[in-house]
Amino acid sequence: MASAAPSRVLNLAVIGVGLVGSELLKQLAQPSLASRFRLVFVSNSKHSVSSLTPKGSLDFSNWKQNLEGSTAPPALEDLPRILGEFVEGDAAKNPFAVVDNTSSESVALLYPKFLRAGINVVTPNKKAFSSDLWLYDDIVASSASTGAKFLHEATVGAGLPIVQTLKDLVETGDQVKRIEGVFSGTLSYIFNEFSSPKGGSEFFSTVVRIAKEKGYTEPHPGDDLNGADVARKLTILSRLIPSLRNSLHSGYKSVSTTSLVPEALRGSEVTGADFLQHLPDFDSHFHLLKEEAEKEGAVLRYVGVIDVAKGEIKAALEKYPKDHAFATSLGGSDNIIAFHTERYSPRPLIVQGAGAGAAVTAMGVLSDLLKLI
Amino acid sequence: MASAAPSRVLNLAVIGVGLVGSELLKQLAQPSLASRFRLVFVSNSKHSVSSLTPKGSLDFSNWKQNLEGSTAPPALEDLPRILGEFVEGDAAKNPFAVVDNTSSESVALLYPKFLRAGINVVTPNKKAFSSDLWLYDDIVASSASTGAKFLHEATVGAGLPIVQTLKDLVETGDQVKRIEGVFSGTLSYIFNEFSSPKGGSEFFSTVVRIAKEKGYTEPHPGDDLNGADVARKLTILSRLIPSLRNSLHSGYKSVSTTSLVPEALRGSEVTGADFLQHLPDFDSHFHLLKEEAEKEGAVLRYVGVIDVAKGEIKAALEKYPKDHAFATSLGGSDNIIAFHTERYSPRPLIVQGAGAGAAVTAMGVLSDLLKLI
Repeated sequence: MASAAPSRVLNLAVIGVGLVGSELLKQLAQPSLASRFRLVFVSNSKHSVSSLTPKGSLDFSNWKQNLEGSTAPPALEDLPRILGEFVEGDAAKNPFAVVDNTSSESVALLYPKFLRAGINVVTPNKKAFSSDLWLYDDIVASSASTGAKFLHEATVGAGLPIVQTLKDLVETGDQVKRIEGVFSGTLSYIFNEFSSPKGGSEFFSTVVRIAKEKGYTEPHPGDDLNGADVARKLTILSRLIPSLRNSLHSGYKSVSTTSLVPEALRGSEVTGADFLQHLPDFDSHFHLLKEEAEKEGAVLRYVGVIDVAKGEIKAALEKYPKDHAFATSLGGSDNIIAFHTERYSPRPLIVQGAGAGAAVTAMGVLSDLLKLI
Repeated sequence: MASAAPSRVLNLAVIGVGLVGSELLKQLAQPSLASRFRLVFVSNSKHSVSSLTPKGSLDFSNWKQNLEGSTAPPALEDLPRILGEFVEGDAAKNPFAVVDNTSSESVALLYPKFLRAGINVVTPNKKAFSSDLWLYDDIVASSASTGAKFLHEATVGAGLPIVQTLKDLVETGDQVKRIEGVFSGTLSYIFNEFSSPKGGSEFFSTVVRIAKEKGYTEPHPGDDLNGADVARKLTILSRLIPSLRNSLHSGYKSVSTTSLVPEALRGSEVTGADFLQHLPDFDSHFHLLKEEAEKEGAVLRYVGVIDVAKGEIKAALEKYPKDHAFATSLGGSDNIIAFHTERYSPRPLIVQGAGAGAAVTAMGVLSDLLKLI
């Protein structure tokens, strides 16, 4: 009989301890999990703590206190080298993962270095996978060179099983034909309220204002309404589909994207407060769009569509019949994503649920980490 | 820099090559996959072929031909020992998985032996996980003793991400409150046709007959209408929820299950043909149930419910309002499963899509196999 496999721990470096990062460390501190991980490094934007320094002591109960007392800079540029030396010197060959909980482009640029040092990368940060193709290529090649993985379930739909489901479909040989869905929790909420099968709210600007008050939007609501977040998610999924792998050279900027930000409010000098103040001037525009939809027995939904045969990838405001799942089943800030494939045809595989929030995003990150153990 | 991880192959023993087994071997034969697996053993109910015998040669292109020419019996009772010796002698430590594509209870009884020999078990066969608790306990303990895994995504919802999603929710510390869904593709089709928001078919027996003709039912439709398949799936999911882990001592027989088979047709002497012949005698009964639902603005759905707080696990015919997702979103033989949890609240995480069929079931098995590489 074979003997029991030695239990390994996953070494962790956690970059960013905002809402998602703090929640992740809280989830990791659960008794059933804490013993399976070893916290090696934690940083916020100003400071860092590490267990690799002579006096270093770090665990899931003391990281916050230690970080608050630290004067060491994050020094993230040195991190791939420092952690790489640690990995090389670990005779027990415990796996190592860096978790990037920031939305920083500069942290994303470090992923190839981590991967080439044999360190897995797990993140809800969309930047690396939705920017220029060369960065994505570098990440894929770096991962292949050492076998270290990059996992990013939480970049699309937070904790919902979207990225892994698409990977499973593709890897098992299904042919993806079309992916269509409501990918933005913010835009889901706004259009569920503004344009429901039962009528909806009167003024678009009022709905946006309430969404802002509820904490559903970015500080500047234009950052949701411009569709860039949806375009980023479409880029991430498209790159997992073999025939679209190389189609978006400039990443999300290559996606055909309808911005809902009125032309007059697009300048970089327009603050979030300015935006909300002037949005009512455009209520009649959105009202007209809704009326047009209603004449056709439809509602408005801001969706992302990947049409594989046509090679069309777009983020756009579309009309859906009032008995369509996007009209009837959605509520709150739900995401809904439908995978139309050769096997799932004529009816798609659908995943639906909250697609934003710290608890479900951290859960997406943590489920990726558990795959590495 | 760390060097590239040596690429490992997953050794495979495939028991059962009916619809699902053949489809699995077809999917495995894809060029992108075949090199990652090595086929070591294949059996049907009468014969087997193995690459471990002196003249053995076996791959994804020749298994069928070799199996047809074989006179060797399956001899499955010897398989744990034979494969165990192979695993022990493999200096390269390639992982090994047995895939059970049967629905046999006797094959299920072998799982603990495979696991104790360090061999992973992957299967769409519900028997082992939905029968008596002692067998499940033995499987869990055997797995823990060697680290060999048992993966059974395809036992619930075929290729849909149901089992892994529940595992992720539980492992990351979410609190599951309630799971509710349409778990049987056959009963989904029957009630989508018989009781739709737009009215539905007049005669229950006609719908069942058509379902049988379309190949959606078991040879004896009573084997679907008795609810046992739903009860088995509920048992499998319940055992993944810590507080319900030990609650179903006799497995699916412990689940509160409403059988839709009329009392008079329950005897073991009633054949499938008898059943279909006499079912029209009971059309008025089902018609009455539908009328009662319609008076409340509801439709009938055969669902499974796991209420964690109440400890209630039931398979039953229930009424759902005509605007409920179970009424509006379902079509064909779709499954839909809603996870109500602490994090996914007040709105659940929902997974929906075809929950039966060889292609999607094999896909569920294959995605489990890919996790082992």
